[in-house]
Amino acid sequence: MFSFTLLHKDNSSKARRGRIHTPHGVIETPVFMPVGTQATVKSLTPENLKEIGTEILLSNTYHLHLNPTSELIEKAGGLHTFMNWSGPILTDSGGFQVYSLASNRKITEEGVRFRSHIDGAEIFMRPEDSIAIQHRLGSDIIMAFDECPPLPSSYDYMKKSIERTHRWAKRCQDAHGCVKHQALFAIVQGGTDESLRRMSAEVLTSMDFPGYAIGGLSVGEKKVDMLRTLDYLPDLLPEEKPRYLMGVGTTRDILESVLRGVDMFDCVLPTRLARHGVAMTSQGDLSIKKSIYTEDFGPLDPDCSCYTCTHYSRAYIRHLFRRKEILSAHLLSLHNVYHLIDFVKKIRVAIENDSLADFADRYRRNFR
Amino acid sequence: MFSFTLLHKDNSSKARRGRIHTPHGVIETPVFMPVGTQATVKSLTPENLKEIGTEILLSNTYHLHLNPTSELIEKAGGLHTFMNWSGPILTDSGGFQVYSLASNRKITEEGVRFRSHIDGAEIFMRPEDSIAIQHRLGSDIIMAFDECPPLPSSYDYMKKSIERTHRWAKRCQDAHGCVKHQALFAIVQGGTDESLRRMSAEVLTSMDFPGYAIGGLSVGEKKVDMLRTLDYLPDLLPEEKPRYLMGVGTTRDILESVLRGVDMFDCVLPTRLARHGVAMTSQGDLSIKKSIYTEDFGPLDPDCSCYTCTHYSRAYIRHLFRRKEILSAHLLSLHNVYHLIDFVKKIRVAIENDSLADFADRYRRNFR
Repeated sequence: MFSFTLLHKDNSSKARRGRIHTPHGVIETPVFMPVGTQATVKSLTPENLKEIGTEILLSNTYHLHLNPTSELIEKAGGLHTFMNWSGPILTDSGGFQVYSLASNRKITEEGVRFRSHIDGAEIFMRPEDSIAIQHRLGSDIIMAFDECPPLPSSYDYMKKSIERTHRWAKRCQDAHGCVKHQALFAIVQGGTDESLRRMSAEVLTSMDFPGYAIGGLSVGEKKVDMLRTLDYLPDLLPEEKPRYLMGVGTTRDILESVLRGVDMFDCVLPTRLARHGVAMTSQGDLSIKKSIYTEDFGPLDPDCSCYTCTHYSRAYIRHLFRRKEILSAHLLSLHNVYHLIDFVKKIRVAIENDSLADFADRYRRNFR
Repeated sequence: MFSFTLLHKDNSSKARRGRIHTPHGVIETPVFMPVGTQATVKSLTPENLKEIGTEILLSNTYHLHLNPTSELIEKAGGLHTFMNWSGPILTDSGGFQVYSLASNRKITEEGVRFRSHIDGAEIFMRPEDSIAIQHRLGSDIIMAFDECPPLPSSYDYMKKSIERTHRWAKRCQDAHGCVKHQALFAIVQGGTDESLRRMSAEVLTSMDFPGYAIGGLSVGEKKVDMLRTLDYLPDLLPEEKPRYLMGVGTTRDILESVLRGVDMFDCVLPTRLARHGVAMTSQGDLSIKKSIYTEDFGPLDPDCSCYTCTHYSRAYIRHLFRRKEILSAHLLSLHNVYHLIDFVKKIRVAIENDSLADFADRYRRNFR
């Protein structure tokens, strides 16, 4: 039911134009996936998301496991029915949130024991549990349960960690079994150490997953270290499988990653910035809080064709934000998610025309 | 530019079916007007409002005067352009908010001196100021600046108050002058004292306003006192002018008021209840917080055809509300406003069929 087709390779860079088939529809790549942490992309309806061109959503296993529970979502008919989204969904494994949100965590070979960040309840999650939860959710792409070690970690710890992550990947693969309507991706770890990254890529690609994610980047390391890792890592992953860089969601990072051969991206940034009054624009971020926008009756981004930019002024959105009106989060989220989706669409056209290097030059000149 | 046509009188009650023409479109009556206090109906876009049948919005002079100011809205091209609502708008005079929100207020013949509830800034508002602000906003129906005395007030205070409100109504009329694209309504006051209400209705109707509001009800008096007032007051107002009961927004109160000859209603209740997790339904209010809805996969109201009820379950909306997700306020607001608008539409049909008394009997039997 899941397949990836490599449609074209840009001859000016390592960028790829591809197409993923899933049981809930087709995804063109490179793709940006908006994040619906709690089974909702904050402040947007599924209809809003479709209108702005969303092809696939990401949702979070850790959060849904805590509330409302995967058992309840399964009773509702699965995550697609529960949240009224008929397109493809990718769920992460919960691994990242266990490390970034939960407390009192204790990692053993068997799994991770931790306390809920909401009510402190003790939870034990093994790779098999993560897969069982994702089976109940019914997402189209599911992720292997991994450890995302903090940076910096010692070489020894990092090596032990990725070796365990590889064993967990195998257990996830076994637990997933012959389920055909959900595709299980593995996650390459190894921080910013090239030898560990190479080891992780080699072990995991030998296990033949239908797709590969790059985890443990965009988690606080220096930008130069992220790009240096992306200079070689995508080349180590199978050409005929999609490559997903987790947690990246600025136009700059997406472009640099696509140039290096990455196909899929997700990030909470567009909706989070929106709730803080920041618009992502073709000239860089714009904080609507600034008093210079008080009587600015122009759109957030003059180059944007989204609903927000064609119907509302900076002055109006600034007024809504200052009055703490819900509509400001809605209008800014709609714009920001559109901005990223429109950006990857432009990238796709540039790849098809073998001109992504030129596109990147123009982008770097214009973007503040 | 403004006109009211009485289309039909129900022969089973005093209910009326009418039509208001304004420069921004036609309004069928009886009508419910959603409230956009800060130039936004909380959590809903103008497109959402149109889709659920909204014919006219109400916005608040007091709030817009403080933020973003009527001068800024005038520069934006008026309130319609500023908030992207092309239909009719009614603005209140600010009188009610001056009494319910502002502090340190001092009422003189000239006007009211008060402090902003936001930053404490001292403001002096005269009837002429309220009209000037509403002129800058450009709303289709504007209201005379009145005093809404607290209940209970002494007969002597109430009498002095309504006499001043009448003089202020004259000053508003003079300040409004020959402006044709905005219709100025007067507000009948007098609390629950019949002699004062009769005096107020007599004085104001003699001044020939294009419409009349009933103020000072639904402000904390007993329900029986409200209904007793409505038993005689609408009859004292001109038959050929619309009658607007301010601040009423439950189906029960709307129905009882329509039966007594009222045409227009507004209330923040549907959106406020929504933000507190309450759905207005055909069987009464439903608090989505209750644990009995945890695994309830049915709609908020099985009798409702709104977007929320046709796409989402109680279990999902409960999950969103508990996680403090913005979408819960949006989905509940959409449902609640639809509920009231759909209700007045059904009332219109019943009036056209001379059967509102039967409709009311059925309603009273079913509604908890």
